Amino acid sequence: MVELVRETLHTSVTDPVAASMNFLNEVAGRFPDAISLAAGRPFDEFYAVEDVQRYLAAYIAHLRAEGVSEARLRQAMLQYGRTNGQLGPMIARMLEIDEDIRVPADSIMVTAGCQEAMIIALRGLCAAPEDVVLAAEPCYVGFTGAARVLGVPLVPVPETPDGLRPETVTRVAREVRASGRRPRAVYVVSNFANPSGVSLSPEVRRGLIDAAAEEDLLILEDDPYGLFGLDDRRSPTLKSLDTDQRVVYLGSFAKSVFPGARVGFLVADQTVVSAAGHRSLLADELSTVKSMVTVNTSPIAQAVIGGVLVSCGYSLRAANREKIAFYRRNLRALLAALDHHFSDPGITWNSPSGGFFAVMSVPVRADEKLLELSARDYGVLWTPMSFFYLGGGGSHAIRLSCSALATDQIDEGVRRLAALIADVGS
Amino acid sequence: MVELVRETLHTSVTDPVAASMNFLNEVAGRFPDAISLAAGRPFDEFYAVEDVQRYLAAYIAHLRAEGVSEARLRQAMLQYGRTNGQLGPMIARMLEIDEDIRVPADSIMVTAGCQEAMIIALRGLCAAPEDVVLAAEPCYVGFTGAARVLGVPLVPVPETPDGLRPETVTRVAREVRASGRRPRAVYVVSNFANPSGVSLSPEVRRGLIDAAAEEDLLILEDDPYGLFGLDDRRSPTLKSLDTDQRVVYLGSFAKSVFPGARVGFLVADQTVVSAAGHRSLLADELSTVKSMVTVNTSPIAQAVIGGVLVSCGYSLRAANREKIAFYRRNLRALLAALDHHFSDPGITWNSPSGGFFAVMSVPVRADEKLLELSARDYGVLWTPMSFFYLGGGGSHAIRLSCSALATDQIDEGVRRLAALIADVGS
Repeated sequence: MVELVRETLHTSVTDPVAASMNFLNEVAGRFPDAISLAAGRPFDEFYAVEDVQRYLAAYIAHLRAEGVSEARLRQAMLQYGRTNGQLGPMIARMLEIDEDIRVPADSIMVTAGCQEAMIIALRGLCAAPEDVVLAAEPCYVGFTGAARVLGVPLVPVPETPDGLRPETVTRVAREVRASGRRPRAVYVVSNFANPSGVSLSPEVRRGLIDAAAEEDLLILEDDPYGLFGLDDRRSPTLKSLDTDQRVVYLGSFAKSVFPGARVGFLVADQTVVSAAGHRSLLADELSTVKSMVTVNTSPIAQAVIGGVLVSCGYSLRAANREKIAFYRRNLRALLAALDHHFSDPGITWNSPSGGFFAVMSVPVRADEKLLELSARDYGVLWTPMSFFYLGGGGSHAIRLSCSALATDQIDEGVRRLAALIADVGS
Repeated sequence: MVELVRETLHTSVTDPVAASMNFLNEVAGRFPDAISLAAGRPFDEFYAVEDVQRYLAAYIAHLRAEGVSEARLRQAMLQYGRTNGQLGPMIARMLEIDEDIRVPADSIMVTAGCQEAMIIALRGLCAAPEDVVLAAEPCYVGFTGAARVLGVPLVPVPETPDGLRPETVTRVAREVRASGRRPRAVYVVSNFANPSGVSLSPEVRRGLIDAAAEEDLLILEDDPYGLFGLDDRRSPTLKSLDTDQRVVYLGSFAKSVFPGARVGFLVADQTVVSAAGHRSLLADELSTVKSMVTVNTSPIAQAVIGGVLVSCGYSLRAANREKIAFYRRNLRALLAALDHHFSDPGITWNSPSGGFFAVMSVPVRADEKLLELSARDYGVLWTPMSFFYLGGGGSHAIRLSCSALATDQIDEGVRRLAALIADVGS
């Protein structure tokens, strides 16, 4: 019988962050009655199963109304499709209406979720062994995972409690260059980041674009939570401020529609020039990578998202009113519950202006042992912030999520957390 | 304005095979009236667009009949799902009925098409810089592409006209090891390979398993065409002969259902043992890689395939009778047309016993220039075999495909090809 030695498998298999996430899931499975302030997935009662078929039908009806022949329609749904997908024009329209982003449809690649967009952008941009990517830290684990699969080194750019500072990006980029490596891009979540909850101020956005220009970096902007601010003020995405084509925008429909479609996209409107002087779009160049990872994104899944976009007049902001209200209510409930149940001035948390997450500093080591105790004896789950640091950090902080819970469970979850901290922190 | 230098992008972007494929597609686009003996995609008139919704409904009805609650059903379709997918039990049943492969459902990972299965298997197995994978040559371009994205070196194992020989695998594995590298696996298409059309004889199958055991290699078996033999004789898949868990099976629904679902799978029932003595299934270990590439395969796409499996009693062989008859007719038409239109004994071709492809040796250099001439002046497309060689080869051979054409076009396509060869080959 074949027996493979685990330690000879790739480091992405034995990734400690993945092991931590598995541990979290395993604890959640063992204590199903624990209230989860850990789960960052979207609340899933906004749609019914039948909506999938309704949106499919809406997309098909739309194509027929546009005069697409039955033979072409059949090919579009059942055959291998265009590598970069068929939703480019619809997504371009949505980006203009919702985000004031004006890009050609050809610069958009539809991907198998935003995760694949990260893989493709990283793969295309990082070629030489000295190529590295900077990432705001704490960092979304999906991005660190994508880099690990490809063996692309990430260099952390530490965030302050107010988020990323452009001058830190400049400093880290220069240090990287001084060490003989080449910084290709910086990864940042512009609004209500996972895990920190922090958003970039308008000044920081402009400063970041200037810093990237000065250091010859691209910006990989990830914005899955942008719709879900606590109020209607909109911060401009980096991409909408990007007059220089310096931003590669990574898009997700997981929160604005639902995760099960597994459809995301990237916008890569940068010009690529070959040694022979031939000019092309980065999105077209990256299509080769896409073809080697998943060939093309399932046209059936694309059709579902297309049906959603057609049905909402290409404005996910308009289509998400109910969800926006729900997540606002939940984040306010979380922040109110923290105020109510924690009075020790030594315990602090941030107050994100939107999104799914907040971060709390605790006077104890927030490790897997504490998490297990918390689940077993206190009936509450949360995420150690240490999961989100590349080289250590976050040992005394936890991420609290309020996205997957019914609003009335949040206060009880926080009450249980306060009991845990009161008992072990004293 | 940002301008990226193409030569600083990753080698997978500037892959010459991808450039060749793009050239082929571009020529096909410029000469839409040319008969394509190049397109290897499946014929797409077996399904209608409405079938997608019918299969979705069948899967949903099946889950309801099994007693799955509406809340669970909604989660199963709309939420992030299990990393390795939800079709494991159904695929296990299909493999047993159709292929005499008996594996636990947990050893099956559902992937975003077979392309992602290749990426995940290669990534998990190849860790160290000295890890390489052997591949029967000529080789499917999707596999060479997957290796290129990851930077995994492939070492060709030259096929004879009768296909791969186990002793060549042994020889190449030993050469690789002698050069200080570690051969981890050998990639092979067992039935009617793309591009060669060749199948492994029953003796070669057994010999290959023995050779792999002796050289401590895994076998990556890819079998997208196995259903489509010219007669009902079934050759056992390597996986069905695999008493040693030496074969990782790469599965595709692109030909047996349709490509638009973008659902494939891998079977990895190997035992993995950690330094601490913990035992697990390779499929479970690889789930970390899957989570970093696409999180999980679209549950909507999985539901469509699940609906197909439910509807056909888990036998794709039974469900594909009409398609099997069609592809038999087309391959026979191709071979008959070659007999009819080519009389020069210096021009030879093989006679595959099934599948979509045959290979012809031609007395001229079958390059892009000849392809363009062929499309423009003779109205026929084909694929240069040189696309399928890693380090040169195939310069005087072409791949002929008969899968995407209506049967009555094949003879005319071959007639045009014969005219081309008669004119330029003399």
